[in-house]
Parts: sequence; structure tokens; C-alpha cells
Amino acid sequence: MLSKSQISFIKSLHQKKYRKEHGLFLVEGIKSIKEFFQSNYSIHSIFYNNEQSNLLPKLPANINLFEVNNVELGKISTLQTPQGFLAVVHLPKTEKINESALKNQFTLVLDGVQDPGNLGTIIRTADWFGFKKIICSEDTVEAFNPKTVQATMGSLARVSIHYENLTSFLDRNSLPVFGALLDGASIYETNWGNEGLIILGNEGKGISEEIIKKVNKPVTIPRFGEAESLNVAISAAIFCAELVRVKN
Amino acid sequence: MLSKSQISFIKSLHQKKYRKEHGLFLVEGIKSIKEFFQSNYSIHSIFYNNEQSNLLPKLPANINLFEVNNVELGKISTLQTPQGFLAVVHLPKTEKINESALKNQFTLVLDGVQDPGNLGTIIRTADWFGFKKIICSEDTVEAFNPKTVQATMGSLARVSIHYENLTSFLDRNSLPVFGALLDGASIYETNWGNEGLIILGNEGKGISEEIIKKVNKPVTIPRFGEAESLNVAISAAIFCAELVRVKN
Repeated sequence: MLSKSQISFIKSLHQKKYRKEHGLFLVEGIKSIKEFFQSNYSIHSIFYNNEQSNLLPKLPANINLFEVNNVELGKISTLQTPQGFLAVVHLPKTEKINESALKNQFTLVLDGVQDPGNLGTIIRTADWFGFKKIICSEDTVEAFNPKTVQATMGSLARVSIHYENLTSFLDRNSLPVFGALLDGASIYETNWGNEGLIILGNEGKGISEEIIKKVNKPVTIPRFGEAESLNVAISAAIFCAELVRVKN
Repeated sequence: MLSKSQISFIKSLHQKKYRKEHGLFLVEGIKSIKEFFQSNYSIHSIFYNNEQSNLLPKLPANINLFEVNNVELGKISTLQTPQGFLAVVHLPKTEKINESALKNQFTLVLDGVQDPGNLGTIIRTADWFGFKKIICSEDTVEAFNPKTVQATMGSLARVSIHYENLTSFLDRNSLPVFGALLDGASIYETNWGNEGLIILGNEGKGISEEIIKKVNKPVTIPRFGEAESLNVAISAAIFCAELVRVKN
């Protein structure tokens, strides 16, 4: 049985302000939670539906475990249909990216992506293709938003997300800067080399004016039909797929 | 000023049952509505916010126009933040696909895709790459669902969606049947030829057992990282991108 204060504490983690204040975020669903176990993340506590306790893996003793009923889970869950397991996980330390860690690889850079589902899908896709880091502008949606965590399907446990002031980050960067624009060279005819940053912009506005100035290689996914644009997670995926194709 | 019965009529179109009964669906946002104007779809009526009437294009006389206020628009809209324009559009005639119309091209076939946003994103992506038709199993989410329509960003006006009993459709088909599976040949090493069907499955379960039997060319997006799977709209996009790359 959960106390009122436990419920209100977990519910507070639905909001960015309190995630930041407490240094904690939520992961739901046993499959995703298992991915966080096997990662560098540290689990604070797990709440599980008493009807599904048989699915609970063997856990280290330092994790607080709480058996709850459906009604209680409904109160603390961020999902319309709770998935039986909710973990409270410590936020990772925020690390500024070190440029030397970006050499000999391609890294996605998100400039103002706003939709939590898009960010989550980008993280999941990056993980599929073996991209280990994503750099986000400070106005990109927060990666520990429950909707983003959900959409990553556990991949957030493996892909590290670094929020940076993009202008100053790009000013000190010496890697090639590819930018996803509508009037660049075809991605199929681009000489990618073996390293670089791939900048993708906001859902409605694209890459911001200030950041466009830092792009030295504008690239485009060639259009053969009539849609005006592609969803940003779709663009990111096509870039990742093309990069692994030319690199392998 | 809208009457109660007008409001309840439009609200009924939020539901599949009434869309089917009345042969009508909703499109919101002036950009998307304009795409439907320029298409074969027939517009029944348009409701527009009196504060945005300057954005209204010149319209044929046979379209019923209703000026509404913010409160009224909020009542009839399917969106949390209504976009100022809502059109009621006639559903297209349901046409069974003719196999000869699928020759010399690639066509996406969706087997049980459930998420309206995923279907909408697939339609938008198909439109970008010039794919004109999508075939859906009967249990695929309805394409005229407001969330799907919204996610297509107007592309639904250009890509025709055909619901078919996939088993019998595939039984009478003679085109190569590619299936997106986890253990197929790499899409980068597949001899695609110049025509075929690309089957993509349900978000959780993939392609159904019955339909897997009809796949004669299993194909896979190679994985270089650790995510267990890709989102279905992401997979569809990577297939489309690769197909246009090899064809062009």
C-alpha cells in the first residue's frame, strides 16, 4: 500500500521541474526497465503490479521494491494503460561532450526538436544503427520526459544524450558539419568521409538561422514525390541508414 | 453560430463508426485542407475561425462555409490546439486494387499497423518518395482517423490507401513479395529488381504468421547497435529511401 506522499512524490516526477530537482526520472514496462539494469544507470526503486510479480527479475538488494495494486499503479503511471512495472531511475550526470570523443564517427545533432515521441524514436533508431551519442540544443525537448523514455523502448539506456549550447559547441568544433536542408546535395551523392556532425532541425522551422551558418555541407534526402517535408525522426533514420551503408 | 445539431454531427465524425455511416471525415489546418482541394477529394464544408478569415483561399461556390468563433471551433476540433480551419471531406470510393496497377513499381503493404500516427507518417514518407499507393490489411488502423490525417500533413490527398484481405490479395498476386523481417537478407545486398510488394508488420508482433508464409524475399535493415527493433514508420522510410536509391 502506497502512502499519499509516495504517490505525490512519484507523480511529481511526471514533471520536468521535479525530475531536475530530485535527479530522478521514470521508466515503465519490464522490458525497458531491464535495459536500464544492464546499463550504467542506477535504479532507485521499482513499483510492480502484484498480479505480475512472476515477471520480476532477480534484483540487487539495494533496490527498493514496492508491490502495488492496479489502482495504485494507475495513479503513479504516466501511461493510459500502465504496463505493470514502473521504475524510478537516477538521472545520469550531465556531461559536456568532449570533441575527441566524436572523432571517426558520425553524430546526430538536434536543433530544437520539440516532440517527445520524435526524440524517443530518434534515440531508438540511433541505437539500432550503433550511434552511441546524440547532441541536443538546449531548447530540444528533455530526453527524460516520460513520452520520450517510452518511445526509446529501452534504447535511452545505451545512447547518451548531451545538451549543449549549439552555437558555442559548433564554434569550438572542427569536424565536418552536415546539415539536413531542403536545398543541399543529395545524400546519395555526398562524400561523407568518415566523421562528422549531422544537424537536424525543429519539426516546423527546420534548423535555426544561427545554426545554419555553421553548416558547411548542406545535404538533402532527395524527393521524388510531393510531400513538403519529412518528419524529423524519419529524416534522422534515413541519414543513419545511409551513413552505415556507406561506412560498411 | 453553430447549432447544437451541427456540433454534434461534426463531433460524431471523430468516430470511425460515423465516418463510415456518413461517408465523411475531417481535415484540420489550412495547409492540409489546401492539399485536399488540389486533389480528387471532394470537400463538403469548411469551418473557419473568424479571426483567420484572411487566410481562406478562394473557394468554389458549392462548398458550405461557416464562420465560427474559438469556442465553437474548440468543440468540433479533434485537436487540443485547433488550427483555425476544419474541413469536412467526402471519403473516397473504396477501390479494390488491380494488380496491373502495381507493375513496374514498389508498393508498401501494411499488415496490422495499429498506431494512427505511424500510419500517417508512413503515408507522408511514401508521398515524399513518390509512392502513390499503400495497401493495408483489414485490421490496419483506419487512414481517415483524425490522428492519421493529421500526421500525413496533407499527403493523404495524394497517396491512395487500399484495404484488402491480405491473404487473398497475396494469393492472386504474382509480384515478388519482400517482407521486413529480423532475419532476412540485408536490404543493401538485396536484388530488388524493378517491382514488388514490401510487407511491414504490426508494431509489437511484426508480420502475422499467415502472411509470413506468402513472403518469398525476407529482407532486413542491418543492425549495427543493440535496439531490439525499429519503429514501423522508420522501417518503412528506410525501405522507401533504399528503393529510390537503387532505382535512380
